Amino acid sequence: MNKVPIFEQERIDDLLTHQLRIIQSDEVFSFSMDAVLLARFASVPKHGKILDLCTGNGVVPLLLSTRTGANIEGIEIQPRLADMARRSVEMNGLQDVIQIREGDLRELVKETGHGVYDAVTVNPPYMPLTGGDLKLNSHQAIARHEIHCSLEEVIASAMRLVKNGGKVSMVHKPQRLGEIITLLRQYRLEPKVIRFVHPRPGTESNIVLIEALRDGKPDVRILPPLIVYKENGEYCEEIMNIYYGSEEGKE
Amino acid sequence: MNKVPIFEQERIDDLLTHQLRIIQSDEVFSFSMDAVLLARFASVPKHGKILDLCTGNGVVPLLLSTRTGANIEGIEIQPRLADMARRSVEMNGLQDVIQIREGDLRELVKETGHGVYDAVTVNPPYMPLTGGDLKLNSHQAIARHEIHCSLEEVIASAMRLVKNGGKVSMVHKPQRLGEIITLLRQYRLEPKVIRFVHPRPGTESNIVLIEALRDGKPDVRILPPLIVYKENGEYCEEIMNIYYGSEEGKE
Repeated sequence: MNKVPIFEQERIDDLLTHQLRIIQSDEVFSFSMDAVLLARFASVPKHGKILDLCTGNGVVPLLLSTRTGANIEGIEIQPRLADMARRSVEMNGLQDVIQIREGDLRELVKETGHGVYDAVTVNPPYMPLTGGDLKLNSHQAIARHEIHCSLEEVIASAMRLVKNGGKVSMVHKPQRLGEIITLLRQYRLEPKVIRFVHPRPGTESNIVLIEALRDGKPDVRILPPLIVYKENGEYCEEIMNIYYGSEEGKE
Repeated sequence: MNKVPIFEQERIDDLLTHQLRIIQSDEVFSFSMDAVLLARFASVPKHGKILDLCTGNGVVPLLLSTRTGANIEGIEIQPRLADMARRSVEMNGLQDVIQIREGDLRELVKETGHGVYDAVTVNPPYMPLTGGDLKLNSHQAIARHEIHCSLEEVIASAMRLVKNGGKVSMVHKPQRLGEIITLLRQYRLEPKVIRFVHPRPGTESNIVLIEALRDGKPDVRILPPLIVYKENGEYCEEIMNIYYGSEEGKE
């Protein structure tokens, strides 16, 4: 593990797979189960280029790096988070595999050109600008609310950045499924694989994973539900495998 | 039970609830689990008017009559099926509660006017006109393929017929979820409650139940999945209740 500076209020957490570590901070950003599920759910090419939008502290690129030989870029608009992500990449010695861009995802296509990524992943802010808990500090608010970009802007950007026939994978809240599907299809991203995550048996879903194919034909597969906790309150086997097991490739 | 004529190739089946019986025919039409699940899933008003589109042999109106004091109409384009449905209604002595119209659902609004039903249910043909098994006889083909009306025409008609704030409930194939959600929202029917049915634990969904609210706000609830068969091959408890238990109201 490479030595990198760690600032006040930051800590180093173990990603529990391939000896990966990540810099986190409760005040600024720490990843959630949603990001871990996305990094496991997304179809990734063996080679080529992957882009993670709204990358935060870089958790999705770090986890994806265990599943692919592709080059991975992450883009993050908050300088403090982009810096955390860069230091995490360096700490893990992954500078040749993962590059973190600091910038506005809406502007990225001007630099890269259209259709240059084989796959795009995104764990966007879940809440519209209005409503929700606005007592958060500005780092948290930007990560959770559509302050710097709306759902439509995220989807439009993903469409422009991904190749024809490339895949865009997103994690979001099921409450917004109607809007998500309408916007994906409006921007030529056809939903192909959807998985709902339910916290416990008999509960409504609180996380949705969606994979869309640029210029695909309409044909959706709804995967078996992922029920996080068993009746006895323990993690189900699949979550145990994701968190503590081997993550060699996708099942 | 009232005596009604039963024709060749027809049989009388037990609906297993409230002593209801129904006329079926393997050659012409017999209902599937999908219709039973729809009749259980749909939100129904206590009073007022309900309309069932593509009513077939009337299974959905018959089952709904056990859950509501509302008047129920069914519309069916095939004369042979509309006649079967009418005889089933009469056989069960439900002529005052259920009326079967023979006709084209696309034309119905001209007779009834706009926004006259409190709720609309529909189990439409699942398959587009192209593709699928066209070796079916014409009765079966019309029930399964979009021969007399497309998905868009079904949804557009439901929107015109249901009141503002009324509910439209549909059962369909998950493969078409992208199109269904886009069309519902295009026609001001906002998806509010969705339930996926999976045949067995660990399998992909093969039936989707969707309830939309005319002029509702975007906010989707994904109910707990319904897994039809247990690991041991027996029906799960919920299906046992639906098929063999009391059907007093919706849980």
